[in-house]
Order: sequence, then structure tokens, then C-alpha cells
Amino acid sequence: MSSLFTRHSSRHSHHGQNITPQPPYGGGFAPSRSYGPPPGADPMLWQWFSSVDTDRSGSISATELQRALVNGNWSNFDLDTIKMLMGIFDTDRSGTIGFAEFAGLWKYISDWQEAFRRFDRDGSGSIDQRELAQALHSYGYNLSPSLIGLIEAKYASPPSDGYGPPPGITFDRFVRACVVVKTLTKLFQDADTDRDGWIQINYEQFMSMVLTTP
Amino acid sequence: MSSLFTRHSSRHSHHGQNITPQPPYGGGFAPSRSYGPPPGADPMLWQWFSSVDTDRSGSISATELQRALVNGNWSNFDLDTIKMLMGIFDTDRSGTIGFAEFAGLWKYISDWQEAFRRFDRDGSGSIDQRELAQALHSYGYNLSPSLIGLIEAKYASPPSDGYGPPPGITFDRFVRACVVVKTLTKLFQDADTDRDGWIQINYEQFMSMVLTTP
Repeated sequence: MSSLFTRHSSRHSHHGQNITPQPPYGGGFAPSRSYGPPPGADPMLWQWFSSVDTDRSGSISATELQRALVNGNWSNFDLDTIKMLMGIFDTDRSGTIGFAEFAGLWKYISDWQEAFRRFDRDGSGSIDQRELAQALHSYGYNLSPSLIGLIEAKYASPPSDGYGPPPGITFDRFVRACVVVKTLTKLFQDADTDRDGWIQINYEQFMSMVLTTP
Repeated sequence: MSSLFTRHSSRHSHHGQNITPQPPYGGGFAPSRSYGPPPGADPMLWQWFSSVDTDRSGSISATELQRALVNGNWSNFDLDTIKMLMGIFDTDRSGTIGFAEFAGLWKYISDWQEAFRRFDRDGSGSIDQRELAQALHSYGYNLSPSLIGLIEAKYASPPSDGYGPPPGITFDRFVRACVVVKTLTKLFQDADTDRDGWIQINYEQFMSMVLTTP
């Protein structure tokens, strides 16, 4: 199970900044920088958004997002996962996630959480090699046992004490693994113009394909 | 500048476990589980090793290593960098780093620190796109501006507040970027058996190449 948006420890939260904006003297428009939900906003979504937007800037930075997101074992999301999420949902390329963009991000994470819980058959809180194969299969990727092994080795966490059973893949790394398989498969298929299962590429193309994946 | 092995906060250290082993009653060999440097060990290296080996198990787990290693901006090393280091230096595949293996790890990190300081020309504590191009050039990789841009985008940290100048690449991600370029280039060259700058590969080979890189 993955808890996603957590309460922040006092170490991270900013105190004394939550001053309710006062209406301008004599009346008039409220200051445009006042902090509150846009008209018609889903109150619950606004609640989540504002709990992540700890500096009350009105948008969520990568740092704020990384601080807010944790896996089921309380580990933080990798910076690479955060950058991937920002890349998908920062559609206006402002470098931050505004409230409108946050709705998409929230749904994406919720959907992945549901998938993660579904594929974590044994309820261990992480995805093992067998569960990974089933998950990728259900998404239409029938990878060889050798490739499944490589993905598991790349994305699983190491045993915390160096021995014992491998702890499997945490939520954020599972999402990244699936997105990487999807991205690489698409890149390969696009390059395989004659659909014979082989591609001919030069160094520049090879490096570009790899370096554009999350 | 990268501080590497830091003092641990009290939150992480284990108290009350440092009981000096007593010699067996009546004399004899000291218990084999006693905690101390092997004969002839470099005292300074032992000092560093034992400060990382917080549970005094005699070897360093991935978790202990990740806790001990920080970048110049105090961010922890990525799990992917930790796994890469364990993969290189856990030569007996025990899942942990013993003292003999630690000597190699320590030298590797020290050498990379020296390289990082040399390439960080402006002393900013991180590597920008220009410095990255110079670093890779000095290692014999003359990559196109487009590939340098992709590497910078992949490994740089996002601006902490979402705007302002990009903060560049921290130490651990710089090391990983260089190792990834080296690994991918080697894989490409090995596949390019006729040395014409082009490779022909199928999906299985393509995926394997990408998934074996750190």
C-alpha cells in the first residue's frame, strides 16, 4: 500500500506564513496573490494541493512534490520519478505544477496506486519479479524472462541489511519501470519502420533513444 | 564540493550496542565477532568504514551506504547511484561491502570527487552543461550538443523553487551520467562489429542494452 501525500514533519513546514489576506482598505478587489481555491475547484483536491504547496506560492515545485510523495515503506520518491511526473504534468513548462495541472497529476498517481495494489497480489507493499511480469503482460508487454529479470534488478530496492529476501520494487520505481518499458518499446517500434523486428541505428540515434527515457 | 561521509544524526545511530567484547573466561582466542580493524588495516580507512557501518555488522549495507553519502548540497545519493556502487564494489556478491571492498569504493569516490572539483570550473558545487561537455570530452567522448543537452536534462536537479537558473548536476548524478555514457558507448561499440558506425539490433537486444546501464 502506498501512502501518497503525507503530513509534513515540522522540520519541513513553514510556520507563521498562514496569514489570512485582508481585503484592501475601503473595499475593492481582493489582492490577486491571495491564497485560495479557484472558483468551482474541487474542495478535496484544493486541500491536497495546498498541503503540498508548503510555501503557499500557488504552484508546486519539484522539491515540494518530492517532499510530499512517499512510498508504502515511507521512502521518498526518487528524483527521477519526480522529474518524470513534472515532465508529464507541467504542461505549460513553467517549471512548477499549477492547480489545473495538479488535477491530472493526482488522477495519474491515484490510477497507478490502484494498479499497484492490484498487481501486488501478496499484499507485500512491493512488486516482485512474478508480479512485475503479470503487470507488464496485462499492459500488453510480453517480455522474455531475461528482460523481466533485468527490469527487476534495475528497479528493485536492495535488502536493507544486505541479506534476506529481496524487498521488490516500491511504488514510485514500479511506475517508472512501466513508463520506461512503454517509452522504449514505442521508440523501438517507431524506428522499426519496416516492422521486421530489427532496427538499424547509429550512435547518435541510440544515445538519444536511451537518454530521452525517464 | 562534496562532503562524502558525514556524521550520522542520533536518529540513525544505534545506541547501547557498543559493548567491548570480553576475552573468554580463562583466556583463549578473542571472539571472532569482535569489532575491530583487520591486522595491517589503514587506521583512517577503518575509521571511515566503522562510521558508515552503523549497526557494527562488519559490513556495509546499501542502506548504510546511502545514509552516509551526501552531495555538496546535502542531498542524499540516489538509490540508483548506491546500487551502481554496490554493483561495482561488492565483488564477492554478498550484498554488502566488506572492509577489503570498501578500500576500492573509497578510492573510487575520492577520485571522482577530485574530477568533479576539477570540472566544476566556476566552483558552484554542481556541473552545468558546459562543464559536462568539457568533462566528457576529457574522457574521450565527443558528443553532439544535442546529446549533451539530453544528458544535462536527464541528470540535472530541477530548480528548488521552480524558477531561477538550473542548479546543474550534483556529484552523485554526475558520476552516474559519466558511467552511463561510458557503458552505453561500450555496448554500442561491441555491437558495431564491422565498425561502420551503425548497429542492427532486435527488440530483445535493444532492451537488454538499455536495462543493463545504471
